[in-house]
Amino acid sequence: MMKDRIYNFAAGPSMLPDQVLEEISEELFNYHSSGMSVMEMSHRSKGYLNIFNETKDTLRRVMNIPEEYEILFMHGGATGQFAAVALNLLDNGEADYIVTGNFAKKAAKEAEKYGTVNIAYDGKDNNYSHIPEESELALSKDARYVHLCANNTIYGTEWNYFPDTHGVPLIADMSSDILSRNIDVSKFALIYAGAQKNMGIAGLAAVIIRKDLISKCNPMTPQILSYEEMVKNDSMLNTPSTFSIYVLGKVVKWIEEIGGIAEIEKRNKTKAKLIYDYLDSQDFYKPHAEKASRSMMNVTFTTPSPELDELFAAKALEEGMSNLKGHRLVKGIRASIYNAMPYEGVEKLVEFMDRFAKENG
Amino acid sequence: MMKDRIYNFAAGPSMLPDQVLEEISEELFNYHSSGMSVMEMSHRSKGYLNIFNETKDTLRRVMNIPEEYEILFMHGGATGQFAAVALNLLDNGEADYIVTGNFAKKAAKEAEKYGTVNIAYDGKDNNYSHIPEESELALSKDARYVHLCANNTIYGTEWNYFPDTHGVPLIADMSSDILSRNIDVSKFALIYAGAQKNMGIAGLAAVIIRKDLISKCNPMTPQILSYEEMVKNDSMLNTPSTFSIYVLGKVVKWIEEIGGIAEIEKRNKTKAKLIYDYLDSQDFYKPHAEKASRSMMNVTFTTPSPELDELFAAKALEEGMSNLKGHRLVKGIRASIYNAMPYEGVEKLVEFMDRFAKENG
Repeated sequence: MMKDRIYNFAAGPSMLPDQVLEEISEELFNYHSSGMSVMEMSHRSKGYLNIFNETKDTLRRVMNIPEEYEILFMHGGATGQFAAVALNLLDNGEADYIVTGNFAKKAAKEAEKYGTVNIAYDGKDNNYSHIPEESELALSKDARYVHLCANNTIYGTEWNYFPDTHGVPLIADMSSDILSRNIDVSKFALIYAGAQKNMGIAGLAAVIIRKDLISKCNPMTPQILSYEEMVKNDSMLNTPSTFSIYVLGKVVKWIEEIGGIAEIEKRNKTKAKLIYDYLDSQDFYKPHAEKASRSMMNVTFTTPSPELDELFAAKALEEGMSNLKGHRLVKGIRASIYNAMPYEGVEKLVEFMDRFAKENG
Repeated sequence: MMKDRIYNFAAGPSMLPDQVLEEISEELFNYHSSGMSVMEMSHRSKGYLNIFNETKDTLRRVMNIPEEYEILFMHGGATGQFAAVALNLLDNGEADYIVTGNFAKKAAKEAEKYGTVNIAYDGKDNNYSHIPEESELALSKDARYVHLCANNTIYGTEWNYFPDTHGVPLIADMSSDILSRNIDVSKFALIYAGAQKNMGIAGLAAVIIRKDLISKCNPMTPQILSYEEMVKNDSMLNTPSTFSIYVLGKVVKWIEEIGGIAEIEKRNKTKAKLIYDYLDSQDFYKPHAEKASRSMMNVTFTTPSPELDELFAAKALEEGMSNLKGHRLVKGIRASIYNAMPYEGVEKLVEFMDRFAKENG
């Protein structure tokens, strides 16, 4: 990692790869001899359209997105998509929502404005430490779609399989694990993600939607949330988040260059194994997520007391590791180890955890 | 201007001041010894909240925004606000829309989804070359609000007064002239603007709303477009466009440092006078906007033929002046001379215009 940079364990916005920041820096005043920064480029200019199209093409290659899917770049983050999914696809019918955490719950709540929401599972009794098995899901027959959140940032759980929905379109919020592991896109009708974790910076939602789902939406749909309008205008109904799309382009290019999703997934598994193996080898820290539901992206645990949690985060910061304080809903510690977190960062964290446990145990 | 940079006359996204780009560049890898880029900062972190609050405070000072107004940073650009205004304030009632151009028309069309829209004026017969006088407006008695677009980017017209709405809340889309001239905010109930012209970069809408207007919105309002939710969460209902807000902070700081809106307005008047005086002194180029309705931000005119328009834009580009091609609705030439365009850029353009006219007249 570059000199003077910190290991940033924030849940998002979060770390960017050094290479991405270096390229942004090199191109900042004058992108490819255009005489201007990408931030200053008209979204309709040839120069910018090249960036836009290359970003889409690279994302398609890296995620192996089939031709029958459109890629959209939208405003409003994943929270915008909570409404968009229901406005475009619920059509006053009913849909199944699997509630495995805070954002899954928010998605369901937002959808209630636009139709009937069946809660097919709610993990509140286990404080969202568990990802349900197929047999635990109460899927309904007439659902227009089934919605799940692939990785639960706050609780540190992640789906390690995806349920068979018997032909009902499956929709996933992948904000915190997109690009982190191999995903068979063809199993999903729609995937969306806020960009500020594994895809770059805030202010952008990427949407991957199977073309047959695109149709007339609820007439109350604001244009900026209409999939139909967005497809018709190739995401340029209005000025898109041009710079965030450019950064996403850099991120997917970086993934492709280091060996694609397969290599990223291998690295992520190695990082996660290091920290989870350590957690399983001791009893000072208590992991929040149950073993089979553990997230490769967000590792949640507590020390023996809230005071020690505070001390842990403060001491870690002194040693160059930031944002380790857990979310208020789970408390304790959360280490977000997205794609851009180097192995050395996790190694340093585990070494610190061990030392901290010995000093405070 | 910095070496190798071009004079970029794009209508938006558009030029940034050199100083803003220089500061972004200096802070890119390590913002104020935080060890990270602003792009990587958690929106909930102390470091980022400082940036966020300083941006709001500086904008408030620079625009002299009274305390009874909230400042919101929202997703979805001005197009998102077309829906937000109507979803939050129309409440199935009626509203007056003054149509002085393409975006004003789009705002009216979007509002039709949520209530009754009265077109209080439509400039289509003069191809939007004219800003109406008060006597030309058919304002209705029962309107919840009156909506106008302060500057019409495509047609190059701008309101040089604002109508008396007799107590009905006045709402203005100021996307292309906010921060360009002194505005008495207290005359407006709500002002909104996409950031990618005079406020920085795309992916952000700034909203200035009088507090008494904030109330329960249409129950169909997506959360990300709800003023009530946004106020309650100080624009952090979800991750805001963190980097765009940071850039806005740099832009308003730059304005404050050079002498505030008064100085900016003086500079803009000088730049606009230079080009309009030239246009009035010759008859090769035909201005589109009528004299009394001219925009200080976007100057629109045609050469004697579409072929010469093309040639003009191409030759200008060779000489380091880009994006001069007019919008397809007006054709011809459009020179956008926002705050960040230096006087020298306009001088160079006028010199080129004169030479081009002589060579092709």
